Amino acid sequence: MDLTLEPRVVKGFRFAGVAAGLRKEPERKDLGIIVAERPVAAAGVFTTNRVKAAPVIVSQEHIRRGRLQAVAANSGSANCFTGRAGVKLARDSCATLAERIGCPVGLVAPCSTGVIGHLYDFERYRAGIRDAVAALSPEGLEDFARAIMTTDTRPKIASACISLGGAEVTIAGCAKGAGMIEPKMATMLAFVVTDAAVGAPEIRRVLTRALPQSFNAITVDGDMSTNDTLLLLASGAAGPRSLKPRELAAFAEAVTAVAGALARELVRDGEGATKLVTIEVRGARKAAEAERIAREIANSPLVKTAFFGCDPNFGRIVMAAGKAGVALDLERLEVRMAGIPIASHGALHTEALADAAARMKDREFALTIDLKLGTARASVVTCDFSYDYVKINAEYTT
Amino acid sequence: MDLTLEPRVVKGFRFAGVAAGLRKEPERKDLGIIVAERPVAAAGVFTTNRVKAAPVIVSQEHIRRGRLQAVAANSGSANCFTGRAGVKLARDSCATLAERIGCPVGLVAPCSTGVIGHLYDFERYRAGIRDAVAALSPEGLEDFARAIMTTDTRPKIASACISLGGAEVTIAGCAKGAGMIEPKMATMLAFVVTDAAVGAPEIRRVLTRALPQSFNAITVDGDMSTNDTLLLLASGAAGPRSLKPRELAAFAEAVTAVAGALARELVRDGEGATKLVTIEVRGARKAAEAERIAREIANSPLVKTAFFGCDPNFGRIVMAAGKAGVALDLERLEVRMAGIPIASHGALHTEALADAAARMKDREFALTIDLKLGTARASVVTCDFSYDYVKINAEYTT
Repeated sequence: MDLTLEPRVVKGFRFAGVAAGLRKEPERKDLGIIVAERPVAAAGVFTTNRVKAAPVIVSQEHIRRGRLQAVAANSGSANCFTGRAGVKLARDSCATLAERIGCPVGLVAPCSTGVIGHLYDFERYRAGIRDAVAALSPEGLEDFARAIMTTDTRPKIASACISLGGAEVTIAGCAKGAGMIEPKMATMLAFVVTDAAVGAPEIRRVLTRALPQSFNAITVDGDMSTNDTLLLLASGAAGPRSLKPRELAAFAEAVTAVAGALARELVRDGEGATKLVTIEVRGARKAAEAERIAREIANSPLVKTAFFGCDPNFGRIVMAAGKAGVALDLERLEVRMAGIPIASHGALHTEALADAAARMKDREFALTIDLKLGTARASVVTCDFSYDYVKINAEYTT
Repeated sequence: MDLTLEPRVVKGFRFAGVAAGLRKEPERKDLGIIVAERPVAAAGVFTTNRVKAAPVIVSQEHIRRGRLQAVAANSGSANCFTGRAGVKLARDSCATLAERIGCPVGLVAPCSTGVIGHLYDFERYRAGIRDAVAALSPEGLEDFARAIMTTDTRPKIASACISLGGAEVTIAGCAKGAGMIEPKMATMLAFVVTDAAVGAPEIRRVLTRALPQSFNAITVDGDMSTNDTLLLLASGAAGPRSLKPRELAAFAEAVTAVAGALARELVRDGEGATKLVTIEVRGARKAAEAERIAREIANSPLVKTAFFGCDPNFGRIVMAAGKAGVALDLERLEVRMAGIPIASHGALHTEALADAAARMKDREFALTIDLKLGTARASVVTCDFSYDYVKINAEYTT
């Protein structure tokens, strides 16, 4: 598999991103579309937050039959807590794109991100859709990725090529999100397209299998967006006609790799983040217990500020692990910070802390906790908690 | 009831706080003791973190029969993740105080707070106990309160007087804690003493009833300490001999008031906190659902940074409410920020946001969410998330 963070052309899809004036900064791209040549197999996962934005409600409805032809995604407004007017706006937004490209309205999935509680200007949106359709290009993925950015500092793109039954198949995707991120079903907005010939039931399974190792294994701040959406679209333009089980497994692995790369990109660009830290919990009795511990550590403000301060603060790690409600044996526990063993056999290795602190200056490292109670494991990717997280979120305004 | 944030003399108890050299700053008080004239009725609640510090293990053992004569509390070391040596240290610490005051070792409760993973110096501790016993005074509560401070910027004390069956009864307490605070059973360290004549079973019930409205209704950062301990001691020195049910209820109310005042003091002095915000959730179907929503809002880093920025960010509030997994009706929801209605009937009151932002400059205000689904309610007291929280916790070191 050939995985990169660069865009690639995916047969059967065109993309565009334009500035429609939906944001406060009128020159910034804020409206992106993905258009397939014909209806394609589609699967999606959405936020499990009880407060769902209007576009999530409409997208869930439209994707029910496993087919889509286009996606329309805007930044500048989340179209959430906007009542019936918001749902109407999301439907009208689908209709204006459907009309331009000549497809049924039910084949368009709407997605929005930005401020909650406001409707975007539909006249500007309509004009933006006209411009976006005119700009559609097989090379437009990066423009699309830019149009959905909010507090992101850069577009997040990943792609992979694999050979399936003699055909060269491409998978490419993009994602946005830097805060309000602890997806329980999907992340803020992420889109993955492929030219593989995979039916709707299969890509639904592929997506469900990719999640635990990608978007559901990251956190920035433990806050779950109301707009989380991940869509996977397969045009089939690259063939082959049907996939053997082994080929489907290779395809699933490639989709997971692309989704995982996008998810890590989200954390790397987390609000104010200066470090990417993988919390690995091993030796648990059950995977769910390993995950609970990893998540408590990954979301603890005290652990995250210690990462920022390059402080191998074992006390906070063990405190966060203890919060998970999982029985621990402190005499067995082994903890490695950035590769340096800092605790084992019930004792802290005081002499190793300076070494660990030095290694924590790296932009990426792992914190590994071996519980020595079983064989189950889980990992969660997180970032540190810096002054800039506070700055961005105390000053980003309604 | 006459509630104040000042210390008061409580018949039957003496207090002291001395500098024993257990901290890096040798001049700071770091060892406090509470000594009763004779064994008194005692009840305690402790952390529910699966990682329990050695003094928590020993205190739980000693308080089992509902009687104590003394408390020995130190800062500078949490005596947590210290294995058998830590438990031995906690027992030896009890023994040295028990010997000095002439009581069985099982009547002393040890408490520790500070860095995790280190043992404190026992020779210094022993010398400190000698000094503290010599300094014991009925007026020593403030010295004791200072000795248990860590990142606290000031001692936290509260007291109340009530008349019970003709006797003047006093309840006084103190607490410490500024970070790693979201008690699920008690807070970091808090001590309440009274001269009321209340037996061990009764004060256990009184304590259990006081918790949901005091220490279990606050959060600073959602992190739960390994050392959380709350002790209530009743000397009986003020009488009367036995309390009628109505008097016991008045006593419970006064203990709850003192505990609630101490809990609010903890949040007011939360690490980096500039504001105290009470999250009130009303109109829920069940109290537990109201509490889940209040807690999600109170712990959301996005909501807390918005408090710091005086930003009435409705989107983050509704996002956090939605995370609680409780069904909401967005068309009914009413939200008031610092007394200003900012959303109702499914719409945001954009014109009211400037007013709300101005009111958020106050050091204390309430955020009220009325779900309009039932009659249950809950509230959680929280603080904002500032640059100084990051500063304190990125620089406070192992």
